[in-house]
Amino acid sequence: MKQSKLFYKTTKEIGEDIQATSHKLLVRAGFIDQLMAGVYTFLPLGLKVLNKIEGIIRKNMVEAPVCGQEVLMPALTPKENWQKTGRWEDFGALFKLKGLGDKDYALGATHEEIVVPLAQKVILSYKDLPLYLFQIQTKFRNEPRAKSGILRTREFVMKDLYSFHTNQEDLDNYYDKVDKSYIKIFNECGIPASGKKVVTFKTWASGGSFSNYSHEYQTLTESGEDTIHICQKCGAAINDEIKFEQKNCLAPRCKSNDFKTAKAVEVGNIFKLGTKYSLPFDLKFRDKDGKEKPVIMGCYGIGLSRILGAIVEVNNDGKGIIWPKNVAPFLVHLIPVENNKKVKDVSEKLYQNLSSFVKTSDGQAKRIEVLYDDREGKSVGEKFSEADLIGIPYRIVVSERTLEKNSVELKERNVQKSQLIKINKILKLLDN
Amino acid sequence: MKQSKLFYKTTKEIGEDIQATSHKLLVRAGFIDQLMAGVYTFLPLGLKVLNKIEGIIRKNMVEAPVCGQEVLMPALTPKENWQKTGRWEDFGALFKLKGLGDKDYALGATHEEIVVPLAQKVILSYKDLPLYLFQIQTKFRNEPRAKSGILRTREFVMKDLYSFHTNQEDLDNYYDKVDKSYIKIFNECGIPASGKKVVTFKTWASGGSFSNYSHEYQTLTESGEDTIHICQKCGAAINDEIKFEQKNCLAPRCKSNDFKTAKAVEVGNIFKLGTKYSLPFDLKFRDKDGKEKPVIMGCYGIGLSRILGAIVEVNNDGKGIIWPKNVAPFLVHLIPVENNKKVKDVSEKLYQNLSSFVKTSDGQAKRIEVLYDDREGKSVGEKFSEADLIGIPYRIVVSERTLEKNSVELKERNVQKSQLIKINKILKLLDN
Repeated sequence: MKQSKLFYKTTKEIGEDIQATSHKLLVRAGFIDQLMAGVYTFLPLGLKVLNKIEGIIRKNMVEAPVCGQEVLMPALTPKENWQKTGRWEDFGALFKLKGLGDKDYALGATHEEIVVPLAQKVILSYKDLPLYLFQIQTKFRNEPRAKSGILRTREFVMKDLYSFHTNQEDLDNYYDKVDKSYIKIFNECGIPASGKKVVTFKTWASGGSFSNYSHEYQTLTESGEDTIHICQKCGAAINDEIKFEQKNCLAPRCKSNDFKTAKAVEVGNIFKLGTKYSLPFDLKFRDKDGKEKPVIMGCYGIGLSRILGAIVEVNNDGKGIIWPKNVAPFLVHLIPVENNKKVKDVSEKLYQNLSSFVKTSDGQAKRIEVLYDDREGKSVGEKFSEADLIGIPYRIVVSERTLEKNSVELKERNVQKSQLIKINKILKLLDN
Repeated sequence: MKQSKLFYKTTKEIGEDIQATSHKLLVRAGFIDQLMAGVYTFLPLGLKVLNKIEGIIRKNMVEAPVCGQEVLMPALTPKENWQKTGRWEDFGALFKLKGLGDKDYALGATHEEIVVPLAQKVILSYKDLPLYLFQIQTKFRNEPRAKSGILRTREFVMKDLYSFHTNQEDLDNYYDKVDKSYIKIFNECGIPASGKKVVTFKTWASGGSFSNYSHEYQTLTESGEDTIHICQKCGAAINDEIKFEQKNCLAPRCKSNDFKTAKAVEVGNIFKLGTKYSLPFDLKFRDKDGKEKPVIMGCYGIGLSRILGAIVEVNNDGKGIIWPKNVAPFLVHLIPVENNKKVKDVSEKLYQNLSSFVKTSDGQAKRIEVLYDDREGKSVGEKFSEADLIGIPYRIVVSERTLEKNSVELKERNVQKSQLIKINKILKLLDN
């Protein structure tokens, strides 16, 4: 992509009400645009990142051990379904509206009320179970506190997975598999939940209607609205609600009471629903013994736009965003320093070569995504500081000086030093 | 995908109110599920097709000559924007709702009111033009006649492209480019708009606010709610409104008055907006002569779920759907006839081989998508008639009889005759 054509605009002026680091940086660098409180447009740069996050999540949802099947449920949902579970009244953030004939709708804030009667059309016997359905879809919640940029919005993209089982043991096993898949997703997105640089904690939370706990995944950040307590002995974390409920709260496994308290943002949650939603809809199956039994359920959410914000919260410095490679809008930011013909010609050729399909060592075809700063009339200083703000992993600088050595300057966004690389070695280097 | 695990259910019983062929077949074959009037869930089979259509459209929107940049605008939109253009009152099908603080929202039925102020933040001078922005996003319309299945719904997936120009000539040129791209899209989706088997007609329609006409793309089908008139001399088509307005209506180019009348469904439209939306928002640019001028606009829509329905309207027979290869949910339906070990083993192995990555002649990696009917307890007749209903392009049948010749039976869905193919030749054959 040529930067002169890219639809974006970096800005230094942002509203005083903008507090969260991710909000500031994503607006300043031209990734998102606020339409109104809690409602955003994803600009081309932001949408590219969102799509990469979506790709990572979909892959992990489809593959073993999760083995989910993707569906797409609507946002318009009928009042009757919400009445059956009592949530037409109880779900405070539900957006309600009227259709023709004064019919009452809710905008989908979550989809238990839709997926249960849907599954009911197919589930007859134990042979139809287990069943795993997920979607990646837009959710609507009339949030009172829509103030932390894309960390908390009224309209957001979410992955919701629902699992249906014959018994609790099967649910328990699957729950653990989804947990492992979630940790993999957060690792791949650049907000690690395992390894040496953990920033995303699985926290014990209340509210499991079939077990004592549900679990949340919380990414550490000062901009977060949640507070979590991390056991300094075993690393387990609990959320504020649990800490508050239990007077002498101990870490669930090691039983230590030495907690460190930190601010965090919830990026996902997993929940053993049990029969909470199958009972109101009378979702049953015929078991091997011929008896009808209620289906046991779990649900598992991840907020995609929330993750996008969390990635920026965790990966930035004073100059701007530092995108992890897996989710970066482009892999390479190509910047010619001078406007003379030779520098331009080499840059243009390099842009074409990098952007073309290249063979990689494993025999798969891969295209390197390049943002080419072809703009004229911008100083080198402006170009560099904007590049740092946007935060693409590799910066390649072409100048008369480097070309004297048939080289370009390569700098990684998260590394201080740059290095001279022979032009004919670049592809091989980026290929790894 | 193993059919025993696939979330779907074919059915013979459908509501008496279901009229459109596509509606009947998509419900009966388990591609979509109706949640309420005009609102549907895409089941795994339906979503696979929708995603393929989306892929075809996105490719054509991003590539030359359209060169669109993808954004994602929200569904929740503020009343003020709609008031500026007068459409808060005039757009009859607008869903309205209230947020916190009694704030009025509309659910996005189209996005001129959002994209214009967005573009305004970036467009300053002629150097920022032309600009082409598109999105693939869910639209909401409170349709009074939501009765033709997914041909007319209250919630639907749409691609909307908006173009911004310095002058009308530039708009005219771009409009023609998008027209060519649309024809390519309809051809690739299996509802051809050019060539010998045209079923999708570009029709002259009224309503261009900057030219005499806008254009619609109408796919012929008895289930369509529109009527078009096709010139028997030049093949040009006009919509009913134009025919009605002009008493002695002639074909726009050849001036013949020999029309054939047919029912059709609108799958897309292109529109020269001129300054209709730039004026209310005061969207201007500074031209080369230093003067401020209003930006000239065009807009271009395609309904993805509408296309899905139109494909089925056009591609079916008495037995079921006949998916064009480009948009089929799977390429191959693999059906073992007997339940004995040898037939099952060969089928399982064939399933694994076909589903694995294979190298194609052009060096790109490609995976063949297979639906493997591994269900036991179904008769061959049931399996075959369900396969015909679902409509996957290639059916491969494995039986004791074929295995005696180290072969399987291959039948294309749209061809009467089947042929025996040596097992080791299959990959090569499907690879083309």
